[in-house]
Amino acid sequence: MNAARGKFITLEGGEGAGKSTVLNAVRELLAAHGLDVVVTREPGGTTAGEAIRGVLLDPTLHGRIAPETELLLMFAARAQHVRETIVPALAAGRWVLGDRFTDASYAYQGGGRGQPDERIAELERWAAAGLQPDLTLLLDLPVGVGLERVRGRGPADRIELEAHEFFERVRAAYRARAAAQPARFRVIDASRSLDEVLTQVRAAVTDFLAVNAARGAA
Amino acid sequence: MNAARGKFITLEGGEGAGKSTVLNAVRELLAAHGLDVVVTREPGGTTAGEAIRGVLLDPTLHGRIAPETELLLMFAARAQHVRETIVPALAAGRWVLGDRFTDASYAYQGGGRGQPDERIAELERWAAAGLQPDLTLLLDLPVGVGLERVRGRGPADRIELEAHEFFERVRAAYRARAAAQPARFRVIDASRSLDEVLTQVRAAVTDFLAVNAARGAA
Repeated sequence: MNAARGKFITLEGGEGAGKSTVLNAVRELLAAHGLDVVVTREPGGTTAGEAIRGVLLDPTLHGRIAPETELLLMFAARAQHVRETIVPALAAGRWVLGDRFTDASYAYQGGGRGQPDERIAELERWAAAGLQPDLTLLLDLPVGVGLERVRGRGPADRIELEAHEFFERVRAAYRARAAAQPARFRVIDASRSLDEVLTQVRAAVTDFLAVNAARGAA
Repeated sequence: MNAARGKFITLEGGEGAGKSTVLNAVRELLAAHGLDVVVTREPGGTTAGEAIRGVLLDPTLHGRIAPETELLLMFAARAQHVRETIVPALAAGRWVLGDRFTDASYAYQGGGRGQPDERIAELERWAAAGLQPDLTLLLDLPVGVGLERVRGRGPADRIELEAHEFFERVRAAYRARAAAQPARFRVIDASRSLDEVLTQVRAAVTDFLAVNAARGAA
């Protein structure tokens, strides 16, 4: 295997931020650059991970999953995802485009549920094998705008049943991480029109590709 | 709530050790002493935990659950079990009789799968809230004898599909824990006839009840 290691790009953001649309746009942009792209999601991305996702999002378990249980389930799915899907794809020179990764645990289980950052960092170290995305697009928008957008999408999953304040804490945690790691994060203003959001996203990914190409040529 | 805290008794052991029969005998003995007993099991013991158990034992996932994933799933189920089932029962003065607990993680995920003891100890501290059984009966027998007994019981689950050497490491880890914590463990020779096994078990539990009653009276 002589291929260069692929790159790992993640999308993060709260409810109604437009992640699915952005995911498709990024995939198309990468493919247009001739890159072999694996699209995956968390929790999930493997057979075991999708089964764990079923437990995590089951609305009948609302109030019957402790914060510690939720954190461990997220990292159980992630441990499998890293080993079975992400690392082998990157090693084979493929690019991996992930719908959420460890940043989401800092935001939801940390900011949202109050699990300590050091606990999450320790799990990140061994369960996620310390894997870090090369680029993370944070789709940021006011909580009220996002919740208004998802209303009427169909039955809420277990996490969508949380109160407004929960999502404010999630957003604050996401923004704090982006501010602390500016080299990896690009914050996208997802409150804008879809066209404007996609323009920001394409600019961020195109920038990343240019920097990456320059490094490869150096 | 004026009731004294209940006691937590666990059964541990490898395949074919006779845990189900022993569990029933211990339950009957405790009930005969007028104790209110909750019988539970791991992985499981809660709605979420039983769903997690389904993932853990699914034979179609053989080879598709990394050791890290397995350890995290076990503690996810345990975190819920401790908070939702065991601790509330003990606080209400009920006795809890558990079919496996954290010792099984040291044996199977530690001894069997090679996950470091310190990693398990850290999870025990925060995910299992440091909860320790008051009495643990280890049903010990040679691996070959146990595997011979379970043969023909029906389709093997994911963990039962492991090789003989795996179960030797599990047994060694169990025995090492029992040797290190003699005040909590009673090792039962489960290679004997059922009658002899039950005699040993009843003696161990009767001893425990006597010591406990003496402490309560003191």
